[in-house]
Parts: sequence; C-alpha cells; structure tokens
Amino acid sequence: MDEIESLARLFEKFPGIGPRQAKRFVYALLRADASYRTELVERISKLARGVTRCTLCGRFMAHGASSKCSICNDTARNQKLLMIVLKDADIESFEITAVFQGTYLVLGTLAPLTEDTLSTNLKNALKRRLAAATVSEIVLALPVTTDGEHTASLVRSALSTLITEGTTIATLGRGLSTGSELEYADPQTLRNAFTLRK
Amino acid sequence: MDEIESLARLFEKFPGIGPRQAKRFVYALLRADASYRTELVERISKLARGVTRCTLCGRFMAHGASSKCSICNDTARNQKLLMIVLKDADIESFEITAVFQGTYLVLGTLAPLTEDTLSTNLKNALKRRLAAATVSEIVLALPVTTDGEHTASLVRSALSTLITEGTTIATLGRGLSTGSELEYADPQTLRNAFTLRK
Amino acid sequence: MDEIESLARLFEKFPGIGPRQAKRFVYALLRADASYRTELVERISKLARGVTRCTLCGRFMAHGASSKCSICNDTARNQKLLMIVLKDADIESFEITAVFQGTYLVLGTLAPLTEDTLSTNLKNALKRRLAAATVSEIVLALPVTTDGEHTASLVRSALSTLITEGTTIATLGRGLSTGSELEYADPQTLRNAFTLRK
Amino acid sequence: MDEIESLARLFEKFPGIGPRQAKRFVYALLRADASYRTELVERISKLARGVTRCTLCGRFMAHGASSKCSICNDTARNQKLLMIVLKDADIESFEITAVFQGTYLVLGTLAPLTEDTLSTNLKNALKRRLAAATVSEIVLALPVTTDGEHTASLVRSALSTLITEGTTIATLGRGLSTGSELEYADPQTLRNAFTLRK
Repeated sequence: MDEIESLARLFEKFPGIGPRQAKRFVYALLRADASYRTELVERISKLARGVTRCTLCGRFMAHGASSKCSICNDTARNQKLLMIVLKDADIESFEITAVFQGTYLVLGTLAPLTEDTLSTNLKNALKRRLAAATVSEIVLALPVTTDGEHTASLVRSALSTLITEGTTIATLGRGLSTGSELEYADPQTLRNAFTLRK
Repeated sequence: MDEIESLARLFEKFPGIGPRQAKRFVYALLRADASYRTELVERISKLARGVTRCTLCGRFMAHGASSKCSICNDTARNQKLLMIVLKDADIESFEITAVFQGTYLVLGTLAPLTEDTLSTNLKNALKRRLAAATVSEIVLALPVTTDGEHTASLVRSALSTLITEGTTIATLGRGLSTGSELEYADPQTLRNAFTLRK
Repeated sequence: MDEIESLARLFEKFPGIGPRQAKRFVYALLRADASYRTELVERISKLARGVTRCTLCGRFMAHGASSKCSICNDTARNQKLLMIVLKDADIESFEITAVFQGTYLVLGTLAPLTEDTLSTNLKNALKRRLAAATVSEIVLALPVTTDGEHTASLVRSALSTLITEGTTIATLGRGLSTGSELEYADPQTLRNAFTLRK
Repeated sequence: MDEIESLARLFEKFPGIGPRQAKRFVYALLRADASYRTELVERISKLARGVTRCTLCGRFMAHGASSKCSICNDTARNQKLLMIVLKDADIESFEITAVFQGTYLVLGTLAPLTEDTLSTNLKNALKRRLAAATVSEIVLALPVTTDGEHTASLVRSALSTLITEGTTIATLGRGLSTGSELEYADPQTLRNAFTLRK
C-alpha cells in the first residue's frame, strides 16, 4: 500500500466519508499548494494541544487562562438552569436560537452503553457541576431516536440519586416541527403535539 | 389530439402527476382488463352521487341515513373538544393516534385567501357547529408553514367574535418530531421545543 | 368499505401509485368540478373503444380508417429497418431523436416469461410483420437490465428460426450516456464504451 | 477565531465538504486517539515528499527507483494504445474493467481553459509521450459534459499537429449505460445508441 492509499485509509475514518471520497481528499491534497498542506498539518498538530474540555460542561474549547468555557464563565447565564446535550454541535445549534440563557453539560456519547459506564461518567460530571452552582432545573435535550430515548432514561435514573428535592427534570417539547403537515406526521409526533397543545 | 392524449391531459390534473406519468396511466388502462376499466368508470361516476359532506364537520362521507359522519355521530366522542384541520387526510392521520377523542372541523383550503371569503365560510361552518353542541376547547391543527400560519391567524381572528367566554383556543404543540437530532433542527423548532419542555 | 375507499383501491393499481396518493386522487376528484369528473368518465369509457393496436407493430393508436398506425403507414419510413421496443413510450422517446427512420415492433412485456409464451406471441407478431415487408436489419432496443437482457436473448433465439439469410440483428450501442463521468461509471459500461470507441 | 474554527476552515476546502461537516471533522479529530492524529499528520506531511508524478503519463505515484509508474513500466501493456483521461481516479475505474491493456495520459484539468494553456501543457506531455514510444491509437476518455466535450475538441485540435499519419483518434462509445430504460434516456444518448448499434 503506497502513500496515497495509506492516507486515504485515515480519511475513511472521518465521519460520513467512504473510500471514494477519502481518495478524492488525497488527490485534492496532492494538487493543493504546499502552503495549504503545511498549514493543515500545523493546525491538526496544534489541535489537541490547543484545545481542552471545559471542566464544568465538558465542551471543547481553546486553551486559555480559564479552565471553564465562555458560556460557563458568563455571569449573565443562569447557572440554575442546566441543559444536557449529546455533543458540542448541539450547543451551537441551541445558541443560535437565543432562547436558552442557562448552561450546558455535554454527554459526549449515546447508548448503547452499559448503565455503569454512563452512570460513572455522568455522575462524576454532574457532581462537579452540582458542586459548582445550585441547579433548579435540568433539561434533557437528547435525540428523539431509540438510542436517544434509551440514554435519556439512563440519565434520568442516574440523576434521581444526585439531585436535591426541588430540582425538576424536563425533556424538550415534542411536536410538529417547522414545515410539518399533519398528513405526513408520524403518530407519535401527533400524539405529542396534541398533548403539548397550548 | 387523439384519445390517448386527451385522457393523459385529464390525468395531468391529478395531484402530483406530470405529463409522463399521466401517459403511463393511459397505457396502463389500455393494457388493463376491460372489467377494471368498467369498474373504474362506475366508481368515479358514483363518487359524487355516493359521497356527500358531513353537515357538521364538512368531511367527505358516504351518503346514508344520517347527514352526519361516523365521528360526529359517535356519542362516545367529546363534542366539547373541536380540532380544526386542513383536510380529510389529516383526520385519518390523527385517528390513527387514538389520542384525540373530540370531533373535527375540516377547513378545506389554506391561505392565500381573502380574509372575507375565509371568514364567511368558516363563520358559517362554525356557527352551525357551535349551535349543534357546546365547545369548550378548539385546537388549531394546521400545517407549520407560512400559509398554514397565516390561515391560523385568520381563523383565530374569525373565532374571536364567535366563541363564548370560557372557550379556549389552542395550537398543536411544536417541537422535536420523531427522529430529530438537535444539530439538524431549525432554530424555531428548538425555540418551541425549549418553551414546551416538560 | 365506502365509495372513497373503493375508488382508492382502484387507483392503487395505477403504475407507481401507493395507498396514500390513491386516496389523494379520490379527494381531488371530490373537490373537482362535476364537469371534470364527467369528462374523465367519458374519456376512460371511450378509451378502449377508441383505441386499438396497430396490426403491424402492435402499438396503441386511435381507431380510424386504417388498421395500421401512422408510422407503419408512413411510406417515407424504411420498412426494411425494424426496431423491437418494450413499450409504446419507448417509441415516443425514440421519435424525438429523429435519428431513426425505420419502423417498430412493440414487445409489450418483459421476462420473466416462459420461453414458450414469449416465442408464440413474438413469432406470430414477427411472422405478420415479415410477411408485410422485407426486413434487412432488426435492432433490439430493450432495457439494459437483467430482465431486459434475458428477454433480448429469448427474442434473439426466436428470431433465429424466422429471419432469412442476410437479415442482421443488432443491439443498441452501450456506453457512456450524457452527463457520464468515468469515475462514477460502472465497469460494464466502461467495457462497452471502450469496445464501441470510434 | 480559535483552533477549532481555524481547522474547520481548512477542511471546508476539501472537495464536497461544507462548513457543518468540516466542523464535524474537527470534533471527530478531537475525540480520536492521539495516535490517530499523529499518524494523520505524518501521512499528510509525507504525502508531497513521498508522491510524485509519472514522467510519462502524469499520474500520481509513490517515489521510487523509477520515474515511471507501474502501468507505464509494465512491458505487458500495449504502448501503442494511449487513453487520455481527466484524472487519476478515472484510471482506477478503467483498470477495474480489465478491458484496456494500453497506457494512459492524465490531463489533470478540464476546460474552461485558454486554448494556449491547454495546448502548451498537453503538447509538452504528448511530445514526451510520443518520443517514448510509438502510438497508433489515441482514445479520448473525457466526461460526457459540456466542459468535457469542449476540452475534447481542444485536445483533438492540439493532437492534429503532433500525431503522425496512421495514428487514429477515437472517443469512448456513447450509448445506453447499465440500468438504462429507453423511456427515460435523453435524446442524444438514444441517437448515439442507435448509431453505435451492433
């Protein structure tokens, strides 16, 4: 296997990339300026060194003076409101809405997981988070898929032993999303939409 | 233009059918048994004669002893709960969920409409419906599209002069539908999902 | 089952139409003008009476003074050149190209067929055709699919006993079609494209 | 702009990659093992040093003892038969077919190009190639697109002054590709398929 094949194999591990596109990436790099390749190599090399996880919410952030990310450090954010999301990109999607003024916790992975693994990781993360600031409401914001629902139930179960009385646990509302027509909506979505009418 | 073309032109008016598929329908009819064509012709001929609109909810139904459809005639259904839908197919989708035990009103068409036209039709239909049985809650179940939202606001405005105090108007819940992942949800859906968390 | 359901079941037999779209057809008919429904019924009723098959090529055509279609009757068309196609729509596609000045024979159906059935039908049709005018070249224009290839081989075998010496049998050229890029072409297409380079 | 954004911008330049997927690549790298990132950096760094172009056909190849690639060095390949392709991936697609036993020349880029640029590059490449071994047939294997056709005509024109009498120029065959049905084929493809029948 030569240089082209070897690199293509690595690109195949990128999310959503098959053998054909991986190969196209290699040819694109070969045709690119040397300066582009150099910059790419430098940026990837620096990535892990320059990026760390926020000690409070677990999202990736640039190394800096603080061990907490810009959201966790933002005193204007409501520390009592905590949204548990699957991944960093979900935070970005939610920040665009400007509707949420609380803070986040990044789960990082979905079920299938053993209950133990998830609980240990989550419990440690949650303990740290709960020790840092009182939380009065936790919003579960996981995917509406089988794995997402399963993970949500594991998280709820882990939370039950950690939260104090008076802390509520909510799930994001289910119902019709933008563009929905009733004729094409699935029964569960219609059921949720009816239950959450207002 | 010959027989094949003439019939194809008529099929082109079927919803979602272009010239090519219309032509294929004609050829399929030509290849079909004579008995199939005869039955099709009879069924279409009888359709308008055999089908009427429920005088209460406006949905299409087979002619029969009653001027009301099976749902409007069902004493087990809650007449105080009324869902306004766009079309008959929406009722079928909702009936599958088994979550709604009230009755329906079929709007039949969406904006763009003049406010007057819509109001007159709707007001007449609603007046009939309100005269038939007391309604305590009206649920707007229109598409989550620009036209759907516009129509919903016209309907709300028409309702304001017709309903008695104590009748509430609700809209189907908006939020994450089955299969949704936060990363790909649009901002408005996320905003609604957060507002309707529970 | 009521009128709506009964008609929907018939529309489900239209090519490419599922239960949902069949139902939408019925509702569209219900909302349509009575005059549209009347015209549709008349056109379908007249279809089989008004349409017949060309006795020479088998394609559908309007009843008229001649038992042969406009193409078979056209003295400017080369009767010595015969293209065997699967269905009427294929003739229409080919006529648009204006490259083919011969005549057609419509096969009407693809394999899977028993060899006997196909042979009998085809042999009768071909015998009639060959008796009507000398044919020097027969072009097989069947789909490039497993069923198409299988049918083509049955047709070739049936032809072998019917044609006279000097009549050639050709297959439509295989190769790159409009828009093709080599990277995405399948191996068989590339093989054919190379073999048929010119 | 932080480390994550900076690297995402570079990934956006990969073929077919938008901002969202570029960001996902970065997060995937962050979650990946350090050893994977290290290997990726090493492979990209080595790529340009380890890869060169074959001096005869211009395709990318690993540096080695020879200045010619494995195909150009293969004495079993017919040097008299030359296929001009757009890019390296096209060679890979053709090699799978096992039908072509000649050699290649990689054009590297398509029109729009000035006639001069293309001619200079191509003429130099062709002169080198023609000096290395006699060529009796040149096959143009460019995309069947507007740009591909335009480039093919520029190449033909450049070739006209370079080739000796007796060298033929062919184009890959055009016609029905695997899976084609006549009804859906475009007119130009049908015209070609008829012309290249055999």
